[in-house]
Order: sequence, then C-alpha cells, then structure tokens
Amino acid sequence: MIVLPREIDGYGPLKLPTGRLRPARRPSKLLADLDAALDACEIRDGATVSFHHHLRNGDGVLNLVLDRLAARGLKGLHVAATSIFPVHASLVGHIRSGTVTRLSANFISGPVGEAVSHGLLPHPVILRTHGGRARALDQGELRVDVAFVAAPAADDMGNISGRIGPTACGTLGYPLTDVEVAQHVVAVTDTLVPFPAPSIDIPQGKVDYVVAVSSIGNPGGIASGTTRPASDSVSTGIGNTAAAAIAASGVLVDGFSFQTGAGGVSLATADAVGQIMAERGVTGSFAAGGITGFHVRMLRDGLFRGLMDVQCFDLEAVESYKSDPRHQMMSAATYAGPHMGGAVVDRVDTVVLGAAEFDLSFNVNVTTKAGGIIIGGSGGHADTAAGASLTVVTTRLTASGYAKIVPEVGTLTTPGSTVDLVVTEEGIAVNPLRPELAERLRAAGLNVTGIETLFDKAQGLAKVPTPPRSQGRVVAVSEYRDGSVTDVVRKIGAG
Amino acid sequence: MIVLPREIDGYGPLKLPTGRLRPARRPSKLLADLDAALDACEIRDGATVSFHHHLRNGDGVLNLVLDRLAARGLKGLHVAATSIFPVHASLVGHIRSGTVTRLSANFISGPVGEAVSHGLLPHPVILRTHGGRARALDQGELRVDVAFVAAPAADDMGNISGRIGPTACGTLGYPLTDVEVAQHVVAVTDTLVPFPAPSIDIPQGKVDYVVAVSSIGNPGGIASGTTRPASDSVSTGIGNTAAAAIAASGVLVDGFSFQTGAGGVSLATADAVGQIMAERGVTGSFAAGGITGFHVRMLRDGLFRGLMDVQCFDLEAVESYKSDPRHQMMSAATYAGPHMGGAVVDRVDTVVLGAAEFDLSFNVNVTTKAGGIIIGGSGGHADTAAGASLTVVTTRLTASGYAKIVPEVGTLTTPGSTVDLVVTEEGIAVNPLRPELAERLRAAGLNVTGIETLFDKAQGLAKVPTPPRSQGRVVAVSEYRDGSVTDVVRKIGAG
Repeated sequence: MIVLPREIDGYGPLKLPTGRLRPARRPSKLLADLDAALDACEIRDGATVSFHHHLRNGDGVLNLVLDRLAARGLKGLHVAATSIFPVHASLVGHIRSGTVTRLSANFISGPVGEAVSHGLLPHPVILRTHGGRARALDQGELRVDVAFVAAPAADDMGNISGRIGPTACGTLGYPLTDVEVAQHVVAVTDTLVPFPAPSIDIPQGKVDYVVAVSSIGNPGGIASGTTRPASDSVSTGIGNTAAAAIAASGVLVDGFSFQTGAGGVSLATADAVGQIMAERGVTGSFAAGGITGFHVRMLRDGLFRGLMDVQCFDLEAVESYKSDPRHQMMSAATYAGPHMGGAVVDRVDTVVLGAAEFDLSFNVNVTTKAGGIIIGGSGGHADTAAGASLTVVTTRLTASGYAKIVPEVGTLTTPGSTVDLVVTEEGIAVNPLRPELAERLRAAGLNVTGIETLFDKAQGLAKVPTPPRSQGRVVAVSEYRDGSVTDVVRKIGAG
Repeated sequence: MIVLPREIDGYGPLKLPTGRLRPARRPSKLLADLDAALDACEIRDGATVSFHHHLRNGDGVLNLVLDRLAARGLKGLHVAATSIFPVHASLVGHIRSGTVTRLSANFISGPVGEAVSHGLLPHPVILRTHGGRARALDQGELRVDVAFVAAPAADDMGNISGRIGPTACGTLGYPLTDVEVAQHVVAVTDTLVPFPAPSIDIPQGKVDYVVAVSSIGNPGGIASGTTRPASDSVSTGIGNTAAAAIAASGVLVDGFSFQTGAGGVSLATADAVGQIMAERGVTGSFAAGGITGFHVRMLRDGLFRGLMDVQCFDLEAVESYKSDPRHQMMSAATYAGPHMGGAVVDRVDTVVLGAAEFDLSFNVNVTTKAGGIIIGGSGGHADTAAGASLTVVTTRLTASGYAKIVPEVGTLTTPGSTVDLVVTEEGIAVNPLRPELAERLRAAGLNVTGIETLFDKAQGLAKVPTPPRSQGRVVAVSEYRDGSVTDVVRKIGAG
C-alpha cells in the first residue's frame, strides 16, 4: 500500500487520483443534429455567431444555421461572417424579423448589401479587412460565442478536412483563425468520415461539436466567374501596361513574391507578368492570397516555388491544394493580420488590386458602387495594399456610364498612402509619394501621366454624373486593419 | 475631404487612422544570435523555459540554450522539457551551479535522472504524462515564459518545418502544444530557408523570434536502438502470445486502431499482430503514437488507413511523414490530453506497453529501476493505458537479476485499474476487473494464469532481492494525467 505525504515542500499539497480513470465510453463529438449543437452551445439572445466564406456563393451553412436559430425564436444575434454573398439572401428576412440585429463582415455582396444600405439593420454593420478581423478576434474586440465551420469532411472527433467530399473547398484559412478564440466551435459537415479524417486541415482540439447535415452547399458556387483572366482588349491592354510597369519598377527578380485579386484584369496582369518572368528566367518565391487555377499553373510552370493560400477561389486550386505540397494553407491572421509581428502580406513584393472608384488622393473604394450601395468591402484589399512593397491598382476609366476616377471616393476602403500606382487604359498615374517610381516607369518608356489627367479623361467619358454621398444615418463603418475607421457608409433613400 | 462623425450610435467613438500605414521596413523575426533572442524575451531569474525532445538523444538545443543562460548568470530557472536524454548530461552542471533549480519532464533518462535521484535539485521534479503536460499547459498550471523549438528548418518569419534539413525529425507534436501558450516562442534552427518555408509544421503566427545556429543536434540521435522489433526467442515468444491474446479479445476487426511503445517486445507484438491482421484480411483504421519505420511498413502494407504521429521515432518514419499524406501529425494535446473532450488515445483499441516493474495490483512502473533511480517516466504510458479499450503490458519475469513482477511497484506510474492484461514468457494474467476477457483468452486456448502465479515464478527466478523503497526526502512527484499524484520518488543514499 503506497502511502503518500499530504504535502511536499516545493510542490504543495497533493491531489490524489479519484474515481474512474478510464472513460465510461468512447468519446465522440458527433451530435444528433444542428439543434443539439445549438443546445450544447447554449446560444442565447444577443449571441455572436461566426461563419466563413470558403464555399463562397455556394455556401449553405450560414442559411441553415440561421434558419434554425430563427426557428428557436432567438433575437438580437450578431452574425460575424467573413463574407456575405448573394446566396445569403435569406439573411435579409432574419434581419427583418429581429433574429439578427448586428452584422460584421469583410465583404458583403448581393441582397444583404442592398438591405443594409437601405437601413434595414438597427446597428451599423462593421466592415473589416481580412487582417483586421483576425486582429479583432485575437485581441478580444470581436468575441465569438459560436463559430460554425462549414466542413467539407469531418470525423466524429472534429478533425476537419477541406480537401475531400462533394463540397471540397481546399484551404480553410478563415475559420482557422475563428476556432482559436471562439467559445464554442461546431463543425457542420455533409461528409462524415471514419476517425481519423485524412488530410486534416483543422485538428480536433479546436472543435467542440460535430453535426452531420445532408448538404453544406453547392460546390458549383465555389468557382465564381471572376477567377479567369479577362480576355477583352481593354482589359488585356491594362494588364499588359500594369505588367510592364511592374517590370520597370525593378521588382521582377529571383525571389519575386506576388499577389493578385481574383478580378479579370488582375489575372490578365498576372498573365502578362508571368510571361515577362518566363522570358527573363525569373523564379519567384511565392504567390499569395486567394488562389486560383491561374496561380496554380504559374506554380507548375516553375514561376514560383510555392503558393500561400488562405482560400481557394476555384476547383483547380482545390485540386492543387489536395495534391501538391508546395501549395500551403495559411490562416487569415497569418495572411493579413497587422498584429502578428509580420504577416504574409508584409512579404509580398507586388499586389495587383481592382477598384470600384479611385480618387485624386489615390484612395480606393471597393465597398460601395456609385450611389452608395454596398457591393463589397476590403476583404484583403487594404491589408495587401499596406503590406506590399508595390501596390498596383488597375481600373478602367468608366463603368456602367460612371467615372471610376472621381474627386473623392464614395467610400474610402484603402487609403491612398498605401497605393503606389493606378493603371488605366489611358495610362498610368504614380503616387506623388513615389517620385523615384515614376522616374523608373518613364525611363522604361511607359505612359506615365498625372492622376488629374486620368481624372479629366474619366470625367469626359462619363455619361452619368457620380451621385453625391448620402447624408443619411450611418449604416456601416469601414474599419481599417488596426480598428481605426477610414469611412462610413450612410443610408440610401428616405428615413 | 471626408469628414467622419466622432461617435456613432450602436458603434461608439471612432478611432481615426494615424501615422504611417505601411511598415517602415519589411518584417523579419530573425535575430542575430541566441543572446539577442534571450534579450528579446527578457528572461529573468526564475523563468520557465520549455524544450521538446523530437531530436531525442541527438538534441543540441537544450544544451545550447542552457549554456547561454548560465553564461548570463541567470539563476533559479525552471526547465520544462518534454523529455530528458543522456545527451543532456550538462544539465547536471547547470543544476549544480544553481542556474536550474526546478525541472519538469515526462521522461528522464541518463545522468540527469541519476542526479535527480541523488537529490541534486532543491525542489522536487514534476514528472508528468504527455497528456498531463499538455493539460497543465492549456490550463495554465504550467506557465512557460519562453518555449525553445528545435527547428530542423525555419524561415525568417518563423514558419518551421520538421521535414527538411540535416536534422529533419518529422512531426513536431510536442512543441505544437507549447507554442499555443508560451509567452515567447523562439525557433532555433540550423537550416534557415527562404520565406515561405516549404512543408510548414508550425506556422509563423505561433513564433516570435528565429535564431540560426550552426547545429541543432545530431540526426543520428533521433533513431534510438529501441525502434526495432526484438528478435530473441523470449521476446518474440512474448510478442506472439500478446498478439494471440489481442486476437482472442475480439478487437481485431476492420477499423482496428493500435498503438505500441517503441520497445523491442512491443514492436515484436506489433509484428505478430500485423501477421494476424494480414491473414484475416483485417484493415485497421490507424496506428498512433510515436511512429517507427515498423508502423510505416504496416501502413504501406495496407494494414492501416493512416498514422497519427506525435513524434517520429526513426528516420524511416521521418521520410514517411515527408512523403505520405496518410501519415499525419498530431499535437501532444490531441494525442493524449485528458482535457480535450477526447484525445486520440481515447480512440485506440489496443495499446501494447512495456514495464520496468509490474505488481500484484497490475500497477506499472516505468519511472524508476529497482533501487529507485529514475530511468524514465510515463511519457504516454499512463495516457494510452487509460485511453485504450484493451491495454496490454508485456514484460519478462526478470531483468538484470531482479524480479519484474513485484509485490508493489517501486514507483507507480500507471494505475492497475487501467491495465487489462500482462503477458510474460510464462503466460498471461488478466486483470480481475475484466473477467470476460479472461474467459475469451481461455476459450482461445491461451495460457491464462493468475498474477500471483507469475509473481511467484518471477520471484523464484530472481537472483537479487528487490531493494526496499527509499525513505529519503521526495525528489520527484509522479503526476497522473489530471494532475493528481500517483506516487513520489525519494532520494537515494544519505542525506
């Protein structure tokens, strides 16, 4: 019979083993259904529930969860999504009914953006950057009661894979940050696999409950139409000019790191940049961001050593992530957080971004369209602009009859001090903060002009005047990476 | 000029962007040398510094760091290591000098174990299980000021890979848990790779500083001699009997999950189990634990769907982790934590473990040898015994002239209530808590006897009497998974 002392100098009192040392039954985190998970998480009125947008416009999980929360009669919920798409139209009804009274997201398109712009929510929406949201989560500014992870596959202990199942979406960079801090994490999957799941992207230790549903969404919705290079002559012209500017800037040397948005002109630029790299025999270090099949082909062609991927933008990228270890996942925080002692965006040499509006101070609006309706938000726009050594914005001079170069952007998403040049079909303007860059571009024979000249041309081409800013109440606050506010969005229409 | 309100209803006061929005220079976490990292971490007297043992008896990082800390004149440090090996002999000097006054580890072998047993430390060592240490970290019981990660490769932003470099060690399951909670994390590498590192095992967001040194250790030390099946007739006999018992117990069906220690008899048992699986056409789900080349071959032979690996025990396992996605890493917490809502050990059907001593109550000692000198500790022993549905201990009746089956273990590492059967060269004893198991084994014609019979035989064969427990002061406390105390180790010799 082992007799132990009650207390030991330098250790303290001893706790003795008591009770059953082996679990009464084999553990499992699988619950009967979504309602059982909502019960387990003890979601109450006013709770904050988070969602991610890896399934993009094919996501079924946000709708599924909110329908159940509404059916339970919950009120005053805060939906903290990474992005909202047209597929989330039913959220409008949940806002109308008072089930949801607060919304924060990094990007909002479709009916929810319109409803918010018309003042449907009682509280202002918080629009964050991808990095800013990660920071807000990590610093406790955004407290999540329950994070719902749309899981392409999961086992009953909560190991989640983005790489298998009918709705495989590839990397899971956004929920990777949520699951670190949420009070409860629920994996919602339509593909329950035997333990342990293969190709685990989020490990079981980060997940509290697992729920199986018939479908988490429509895989066809992952690939949006924006992930191919534009092929019209204006777009390819802008792309070629932008690529020539990038080349002239001096960044195209071995080790070059690159990010583009997923817009057609950005990808046309990437296409042209890739050709120059191949011609010059330049091997880049990495391409980052949301990754498309286009980036995958650049990797395979040897233009980059690796891909750092927060989100796969199309199914070709998903397939690459599944099969090519050079294609790596990064969390939203690692991607873009301003609080990380350095994020991946801070190591990007050149980023190519789009614009809904661009102004004389080089500020960019990707949040609202002319007239003030919310059509997007920063996502990674402001993060990458701040991080990259060379930030290139490409834009046509007009769209839908409106000038895209305006005296002052309708919403300031990305501050002009973080933008180096804008490339249009009528030439390039270089930020006056970068005179040496303008010199290089001119020396390369590029058509460098003043932003005022591009502004005049855009105004001359415009068929519809830019509506003035609304003076209504604030319906959304556009937060910068650090939580400061770059602008507000005001209510459209009466009231 | 955009004019923003000072405050917004439902949002609060607005913080406005100020200062430079782009970093003045490209971030890097690479410091000049180890001393710069020690400065940056502001290590003071009494600090807790943590280390992991993936390089096993080839580890150079613990010694390197402690030498520098000693050179700085620091006193009263707490070394919180996962395991201590003979290669860490210089720690004895640092204890003697007062640089280190506290030690906690899950396993201690070699000169440090001897020194501790002789009372060199002023405070009792805390011996934890692998799962118990993860729990203590996660629950704030073990607070780490600086976690030093021996990084086979790292980039200057702190992305760590265990898969490349001359000292590639494979998975990094132990530091994965430390980096979640340590105040500061320092990656110490001898292979600085361009950003971003390929095959990232610990992402940059978990790492604060990177230091390059000429060598982090000797790769030859990773593969210890214990990772091959024993081939002598007594060992293979025990292995065959244990395998027959496992088969008779009924667990060998499709989906079978399995763990073995890395001892020769455990691996001989695995060998025999594998043969039965192959004969019966059984496909297991996974093998877990520290993984050896032997387990890798079982995976390749189709006996398991996957491997869950907290630590590669040999270079063949390292190679497999590098190249085979079915071979996955798990953190120490996920592996064995009792606080995780279910760890991997809780999903293991059968574990085969060794014993330094085994007693009439089925308790196991893997902490001290006869006479009370510390030669090990639980590691995952107590965790897997508690988690597995069938816990098999294999042991010879005697070693070095001492009986291995004793009236009462010299140190209680793993409680008998979590052990189902013991297999020796003279037969099997089944825990009286499992009468149905004894029935099954008898029905299969196996030599099931009583633990008293095995005890008598062991005592009859012994040439040296088991020394009585020391009555000296407590030099180590053996904590169970939950932080309760199963036993203490007392000082050997005078004083």
